[in-house]
Amino acid sequence: MRQRFVAKSFVCTFLLLAVSAVAQDFLPSWNNGPAKQAILNFVKTTTDKSNPNFVPPEQRIATFDQDGTTWVEHPMYTQVVFALDRVVELAPQHPEWKTTAPFSAVLSGDKAAMAKFTMKDLEAILMATHTGMSVEQFQTIVRDWIDKAKDPRWHRPYTELIYQPMLELMQYLRANGYKTYIVTGGGQEFVRAYAEKVYGIPPEQIIGTAIDAQFTYNAAGQGVLMRPAKLLLNDNFSGKPEDIYLFTGRHSKAAFGNSTGDQQMLEYTQAGGGAPLMMLVLHDDATREYAYGPAHGLPDSKVGTFTQALYDEAKSKGWTVISMKNDWKRVFGWEK
Amino acid sequence: MRQRFVAKSFVCTFLLLAVSAVAQDFLPSWNNGPAKQAILNFVKTTTDKSNPNFVPPEQRIATFDQDGTTWVEHPMYTQVVFALDRVVELAPQHPEWKTTAPFSAVLSGDKAAMAKFTMKDLEAILMATHTGMSVEQFQTIVRDWIDKAKDPRWHRPYTELIYQPMLELMQYLRANGYKTYIVTGGGQEFVRAYAEKVYGIPPEQIIGTAIDAQFTYNAAGQGVLMRPAKLLLNDNFSGKPEDIYLFTGRHSKAAFGNSTGDQQMLEYTQAGGGAPLMMLVLHDDATREYAYGPAHGLPDSKVGTFTQALYDEAKSKGWTVISMKNDWKRVFGWEK
Repeated sequence: MRQRFVAKSFVCTFLLLAVSAVAQDFLPSWNNGPAKQAILNFVKTTTDKSNPNFVPPEQRIATFDQDGTTWVEHPMYTQVVFALDRVVELAPQHPEWKTTAPFSAVLSGDKAAMAKFTMKDLEAILMATHTGMSVEQFQTIVRDWIDKAKDPRWHRPYTELIYQPMLELMQYLRANGYKTYIVTGGGQEFVRAYAEKVYGIPPEQIIGTAIDAQFTYNAAGQGVLMRPAKLLLNDNFSGKPEDIYLFTGRHSKAAFGNSTGDQQMLEYTQAGGGAPLMMLVLHDDATREYAYGPAHGLPDSKVGTFTQALYDEAKSKGWTVISMKNDWKRVFGWEK
Repeated sequence: MRQRFVAKSFVCTFLLLAVSAVAQDFLPSWNNGPAKQAILNFVKTTTDKSNPNFVPPEQRIATFDQDGTTWVEHPMYTQVVFALDRVVELAPQHPEWKTTAPFSAVLSGDKAAMAKFTMKDLEAILMATHTGMSVEQFQTIVRDWIDKAKDPRWHRPYTELIYQPMLELMQYLRANGYKTYIVTGGGQEFVRAYAEKVYGIPPEQIIGTAIDAQFTYNAAGQGVLMRPAKLLLNDNFSGKPEDIYLFTGRHSKAAFGNSTGDQQMLEYTQAGGGAPLMMLVLHDDATREYAYGPAHGLPDSKVGTFTQALYDEAKSKGWTVISMKNDWKRVFGWEK
């Protein structure tokens, strides 16, 4: 009887260990390698009370760039696709757009002209399509669009073009007490429209380029927030650490990006001391996604530029460059 | 035996009920009256899943003005006292201040001239004393000051001039799943320096008037955020609902203020629908604190003005005016 009990207990323990060993891989879409190891080390170090680099729970903040870091940004930022679709949708109310650049190029589908759009052209299109309504109306417009729109390559909703390894990383960090933030050069309100559903990140943890919402009264005399054509925050480059501090009053302890627009966010994360984690996604996988840099001999790109200088800085400062090709077992959740 | 058990059980139940009745008064510093009742009704309604005005936990946001709402603002805003002390402290580095208004008035202690300070004078003093250092240096400066400074009436640290009933209200709301935010016309970074200790509110839930922090590099080449003399957010009047939305992407469900600077925050809270709570503290207690309005026949005041128009709006829209004199059993935690 006694021996049987011991044997049974041994089997149980073995099964429990086996189950927990399986359950413990919170990053199943990551290949074993330096990137995955850097993540595991970071979490182990900063959540171990006996470690000198322990981070108290209230200071656990992790910040993620979006375009090219948590979802696909090629051949064009999703929000730009949204804006171009909106130009077509709004055209009947703007007959003058037929003959006014940059709108005329969009309406006639002139891809050569659109490829040459300057930053000023894009700003004109963004302002014309993203402002003039209440904040609630804008949320509805984005939600309606993102529920229907599909990308040109995989013919899937854009919200399915999230990188599965990054989703696992977010969940793993949250399971270890980290508050996850999106810190995007894209529009804060655009991302807020789907972030809770897609990333499990609530609106108060979305930091982004922001329109200066304006309080006014509607016809019924009730307070309403409108979106005027006025930029408040440009959440790119230096804007990223500045806005993280504005919103949180803290240093992020882990920062994830993929382009020169994320450089200062990673630099400021590192400047906070301790044992922070800085990672950059390198798009070196044309088969499963896209390949662009120009770092590491990859083709140059205007969208999500990862310069050689940034690559060199990462290497010299101990940041981790994630090779999409080598570090990710799968890219999307719908892959086998 | 059976009867004895029943009797024992009855006594136990009675004791448990008595204990829980005592434990249930989360607002012991509030007199029973319409204000306390409005708070209890609000929490009961919005946390009851069967109620049509139930608020899901993630949407539970309560916003508190600070000066005059959660702590004393008379005879002068605490942050202005800080700024004036800083002028004296910094004077040796600015010999020109001896003969330059408005600094000269501060340095010579000319109270008549200081009483006539315009908004522009105050801004000049605030900028000269609040900018030019890193965000961390500013935190240290504020903490050092607030640890030592004492108010002129009670000779206590300013952080002891918190209203005990409002502290209980914050705790009660948090116990019911509400995230409490400070939304202050005062400086965001000033409040962040002590808010966690004093209110139990973390820096990411402090919204306020904000300097546009600027990312740059220190001599060691590390990223640092400096405070230039440039205003980013003016968190007063319309700025309050605008900034609440910028930071949270949500409507607050409960809003607490005491002056015209809080009007739009309360209006926008009400415009969110449901069964929100809007409250204004009326300072009608010269004995225990101060008495000013000019609403309700109280003396006029430049600091924390509560106009009759705001009072009338509150009454017509069903907001609750808290009478400090009648609704608060005690004002400060150190009172008996």
